[in-house]
Amino acid sequence: MRNVSIALLGCGNVGRGFVELAGRERQRIRDRYGVDLEIGRILVRDLTKIRPGVDRRLLTTRALEVIDSDCDVVVELVGGVHTAGAFVRRALANGQDVVTANKALLAAHGPELFEAATQRGLSIGFEASVCGGIPVVRALHRGLAGDSIESIRGIVNGTCNFVLSRMEEGLDFEGAVHAAQERGFAEADPSMDIDGHDSAQKIRILASLAFDAPVTHESVIGIRSVTREQIERAHAGGCVIRLVAEAERLPGGVTVRVRPREIDAADIFGSVRDEYNVVAIRGRATGEVVLTGKGAGALPTAAAVLSDVIEIAQLRSARPAEVGRVGVRTSSSAGAPRLVAR
Amino acid sequence: MRNVSIALLGCGNVGRGFVELAGRERQRIRDRYGVDLEIGRILVRDLTKIRPGVDRRLLTTRALEVIDSDCDVVVELVGGVHTAGAFVRRALANGQDVVTANKALLAAHGPELFEAATQRGLSIGFEASVCGGIPVVRALHRGLAGDSIESIRGIVNGTCNFVLSRMEEGLDFEGAVHAAQERGFAEADPSMDIDGHDSAQKIRILASLAFDAPVTHESVIGIRSVTREQIERAHAGGCVIRLVAEAERLPGGVTVRVRPREIDAADIFGSVRDEYNVVAIRGRATGEVVLTGKGAGALPTAAAVLSDVIEIAQLRSARPAEVGRVGVRTSSSAGAPRLVAR
Repeated sequence: MRNVSIALLGCGNVGRGFVELAGRERQRIRDRYGVDLEIGRILVRDLTKIRPGVDRRLLTTRALEVIDSDCDVVVELVGGVHTAGAFVRRALANGQDVVTANKALLAAHGPELFEAATQRGLSIGFEASVCGGIPVVRALHRGLAGDSIESIRGIVNGTCNFVLSRMEEGLDFEGAVHAAQERGFAEADPSMDIDGHDSAQKIRILASLAFDAPVTHESVIGIRSVTREQIERAHAGGCVIRLVAEAERLPGGVTVRVRPREIDAADIFGSVRDEYNVVAIRGRATGEVVLTGKGAGALPTAAAVLSDVIEIAQLRSARPAEVGRVGVRTSSSAGAPRLVAR
Repeated sequence: MRNVSIALLGCGNVGRGFVELAGRERQRIRDRYGVDLEIGRILVRDLTKIRPGVDRRLLTTRALEVIDSDCDVVVELVGGVHTAGAFVRRALANGQDVVTANKALLAAHGPELFEAATQRGLSIGFEASVCGGIPVVRALHRGLAGDSIESIRGIVNGTCNFVLSRMEEGLDFEGAVHAAQERGFAEADPSMDIDGHDSAQKIRILASLAFDAPVTHESVIGIRSVTREQIERAHAGGCVIRLVAEAERLPGGVTVRVRPREIDAADIFGSVRDEYNVVAIRGRATGEVVLTGKGAGALPTAAAVLSDVIEIAQLRSARPAEVGRVGVRTSSSAGAPRLVAR
């Protein structure tokens, strides 16, 4: 049994979900994976906030007290780019592995952070950053490692899909967006979701993982201009409208597109409704593999974070103690670091 | 860069697919994963058979010459239970990791072989043994590691699904089975497929991986008794008939069931046709994650084998040289061995 201590940065919805899940799954993880996970310190902004199930003695508002504690893995759930990036850099410099659900950080600084991790033979887990609880990062990096990926397409924004699902039921665009906000799916300003730019960020993360090549072309059209009439017309023809993000490897580089598409209702993409996501990966040898599930939510996302922590905890157990110091590489960290896109 | 040599046992359809794929993906795997995979020796039954793309100098009919060569990973694709089991035991005794696509072997001797691997800190990769190119073993063991699995259901027999798809198009049962045989999906005696026993074997492998608990109850009904009239009646109500394998964790143990079920045509299970497979995994925190893709075929299966070899090659690079001798465990091999069900 190897003890692995976790520093948790951020205790919002996903953070509280992570604390709950790590507690209730602890014994199963000990029995099954041979690692004992313990949350050592938790960084919060406000000590006085009520957080049911969270041990108050672990909380602090001082970031360095958490990161520079003697923990093995830093779980970054503060979100945003600037501060989160500084935290992750510090953790890597300390020789700590990192797990993050932060898509914006990876979109902005991914290559630099992955390079820093590779230099030190460390891992950055980011399964939770794309498509919530669907293990699509692992499918691309591990499950389909033996095959060349030719294309990826997906419905990767749950808010958009929820809006389109409500419009199918008769709401107009504004009413559907309002319904999504009431259910907590859409932000106060859902522009990034509606305009397709959130989908574009996600498909770019998946594309860089799948193709290991620069993304050269991008075109983005959101669902803002989709009318209820278009949806009804599609429906009359046995189709539905979905916001589909696509990435394809072409001789000139990787092309990324996000646009509303008319899809046969009997197609798997047509059957994905509400806040669910779907990703179809086409491999040269494997053909098309499709994954679908909840694309967001505190517990599904927390489960993806915890799965990364378990894998990293097992890897830590297997590697020499000096890994983590700058310049020390395990031979297996040559090439892309584990779990990591470039 | 770490050189990893492979001993290949068996060079039938999947074996030839593996040789082809390992060759054409070699440079990408070097660049991406930092391991250089080379096939050292290949065991065949008949040296004179024509095998396009396979280097004849690697072939031999002497099994021990292949297994006891200085290779790191043994890929077992001979099939069957008795001889394959002896080969795998020998490889583990030699301190070699094993990758297998052999569902029958795992169903018969899985616990004993996994225990032998655990004792030596070795891995047995078996992604290819269930659902061909769909990375469902990894999803259960890694991607959803942080969550408690509550149930699994799937269409896990491509032959059955192909037969039902043809019956939907108007063929009767016998005609549909004949069509499956012509396409190379069904065996000369397709009883195991049609009777649901092949599905039961597969769902039991997935269940033991998901629940880490003994399977206590099993009921199996195949599609032999499904008539074209039943399919037409279902179709009139917007439904289709599929052979669904289910496993559920209940207080008394794990229950496994295989039976033809009427499914809404708009459901993902309803949209899975022909030789495709689908698996839906319900996690307590994650909700339902669904994976679908080609459940069989030489290249999809070979890609799954190669993905296992890549992961094992990376793990080998990271672990101490003395692992593999009896009684030497890495701390991470406590609990279930990597990639391995019990």
